[in-house]
Amino acid sequence: MNSIPLLIPELPRAEEVLPYLVRIDANRQYTNFGPLNREFEGRLSDALSRADQSVSVLTVANCTLGLELALQAMGVERGDRVLVPALTFVATATAVIRAGGIPVFADVDIDCWSLTPDIARRAAKEHSLKAVIPVSTYGCPLDTDGWDEFVEETGISVVVDAAGAWGNQLVGRSFDVVYSFHATKSFGIGEGGAVASTNKTRLDRIKRLCNFGIDTSLGTVTEIGTNAKLSEYHCAVGLAALDRWETTRKERVMHMSDYLARLQMLCPGLIYQDKPRDGVYPLLTIGLQAGNCASEILRILSSEGIECRRWYCPPLYQHDALAGFPRMHDTSIADALGNRLLGLPYFISMSGAQIDRVAVTLNEIILKDNRSSAISAGVRAP
Amino acid sequence: MNSIPLLIPELPRAEEVLPYLVRIDANRQYTNFGPLNREFEGRLSDALSRADQSVSVLTVANCTLGLELALQAMGVERGDRVLVPALTFVATATAVIRAGGIPVFADVDIDCWSLTPDIARRAAKEHSLKAVIPVSTYGCPLDTDGWDEFVEETGISVVVDAAGAWGNQLVGRSFDVVYSFHATKSFGIGEGGAVASTNKTRLDRIKRLCNFGIDTSLGTVTEIGTNAKLSEYHCAVGLAALDRWETTRKERVMHMSDYLARLQMLCPGLIYQDKPRDGVYPLLTIGLQAGNCASEILRILSSEGIECRRWYCPPLYQHDALAGFPRMHDTSIADALGNRLLGLPYFISMSGAQIDRVAVTLNEIILKDNRSSAISAGVRAP
Repeated sequence: MNSIPLLIPELPRAEEVLPYLVRIDANRQYTNFGPLNREFEGRLSDALSRADQSVSVLTVANCTLGLELALQAMGVERGDRVLVPALTFVATATAVIRAGGIPVFADVDIDCWSLTPDIARRAAKEHSLKAVIPVSTYGCPLDTDGWDEFVEETGISVVVDAAGAWGNQLVGRSFDVVYSFHATKSFGIGEGGAVASTNKTRLDRIKRLCNFGIDTSLGTVTEIGTNAKLSEYHCAVGLAALDRWETTRKERVMHMSDYLARLQMLCPGLIYQDKPRDGVYPLLTIGLQAGNCASEILRILSSEGIECRRWYCPPLYQHDALAGFPRMHDTSIADALGNRLLGLPYFISMSGAQIDRVAVTLNEIILKDNRSSAISAGVRAP
Repeated sequence: MNSIPLLIPELPRAEEVLPYLVRIDANRQYTNFGPLNREFEGRLSDALSRADQSVSVLTVANCTLGLELALQAMGVERGDRVLVPALTFVATATAVIRAGGIPVFADVDIDCWSLTPDIARRAAKEHSLKAVIPVSTYGCPLDTDGWDEFVEETGISVVVDAAGAWGNQLVGRSFDVVYSFHATKSFGIGEGGAVASTNKTRLDRIKRLCNFGIDTSLGTVTEIGTNAKLSEYHCAVGLAALDRWETTRKERVMHMSDYLARLQMLCPGLIYQDKPRDGVYPLLTIGLQAGNCASEILRILSSEGIECRRWYCPPLYQHDALAGFPRMHDTSIADALGNRLLGLPYFISMSGAQIDRVAVTLNEIILKDNRSSAISAGVRAP
């Protein structure tokens, strides 16, 4: 039986990118904020702006570098503490450290599996925080008003790591958002990302930091940056991806809805992240009931040719290089979820038969696991 | 009269890149060390290896990130002093600072305009150095044996910033080399770069650092890295650029030779960097005689529609963000050269008539400048 991969990216095909490459040939500019870059940023900005709020966008080489430089531009300096959820991809924490800060690991909410303003308020009583990086975990949009109020009330800066949430996560009036356009995201261009903000001055500062920290009006370095520029080639892929985005978005929303319906029917009892049903999500992570062992279930699914991933396990503070950093007193929800979350295969070209196979196989394994747990607990299975 | 730009990059055209994009479509892998990446690195490795020395290559998102991570993998830690030439592009110094080190600014050699092992030995008497970054300034290859001996004699690590020297700079048995494939280089792919080393273990460490510091055998972060991966799209451009490299190289060598001959004939008295005549160079920087003012000559050339650039002025220690760092006691050659070097328009499609116009105009301006200097000094012009 054929195996089912975890993920197959959907990026524009060569013939969709080609017209933009021809434009690059004509422009003879290949990077350093060229014409395709301006057009790409303009179209991203249009997508994020609303009648009452103009949002500026700066593209970056990737989301991680965008986060590093956004933290720097927010004023994070050596030794400043920055709150990050314990349940997320490692880059959220490595970005803090490379920006000179100290990550403080936070618990997450039991329903949305993310860091919320309430949790951040609790953390702020335990630690002196310079900034917070809430994460739009698994693409789930965060509470924009709630985070705006948090910033305005506490004076603590916020930048949202919306790596997987292009199409879902809005920009706040008081916080910036960093998106990833990595190949595995709903909106993928290979490598790339963007920082979005209502604060044009801060975005201009990040733009200088992307270009080594050179103030082009002076021709000298006024602040220590790096190279985080997005080339015209990636902007070409980005423009082609935008051309098909409305179609992609609708397909993904419908496909995910179908997937969830089949999963709920064929594998009852799973736990789902509390998020909008009409969102566009890059991946599908489900929760197992207490007592089920994600690592054992992953092992059996894998032996059945179904590729899964434990997003995100272990929690960040259990990684060797992150273990020495502080964390909130209570991270019990992140601890528990880390052991019970499982990323299932999910991609737009996944057939109904493949989805059913994942659901049925998962259900069989869980039933067997429950029976053996019951037996080992001395209880007869029904 | 039409203006002459400083530089027009020569990258593969869309139709040359297209076959590789079609391969990406088939592979459905767009980054994270994909098949095009492996092929690109293999071909770069072949180009650098010799019968008696196997060189491994790791591609990176750009040269600056490559330098930052190479320094980290060499063991540069917070507060370690790293020697860099005062006369170079700012990224050499920003990379040191972002890697946690302290740049120490060195003088350069009067003939090759670069940091030499002899200067580094002098600097090592003044400062306790953890590492040295010699730069293949303006593409000029450095003395491989000399730097190997320096490392083996002093125990100080060396990584060469060969940003503009692909095709010229060899890898040492005891030092690594970082190349840039930025659009403006002889071998350009838009954004990109590579670290080359005979030390596969160190290169593997840099590869982990390019991928957040994740040890994929463990699935956890063992060291704090970032994202510096080169996407399959840039590898596609890179493979297409390699396909035409032998032609590009020969054209550039011949074109530069022709340019220099015309310049020497039509604008005598200029000073040239001491470097191999058969090298492949990304740009053309010439030296003016003492007494000529580069900034004034640049201003007049610009008003005549000839775009020039003062590579590299001011010296690094005069940039606001770099001014607080230490430097060698004597940097007089870097000081003097910084005021007398001028980057002239240079690109492969530059016509003989354009070259002659640059040479003749420059000569006229210099003669006028000399006459007015002589008059202001109270000496009658002949």
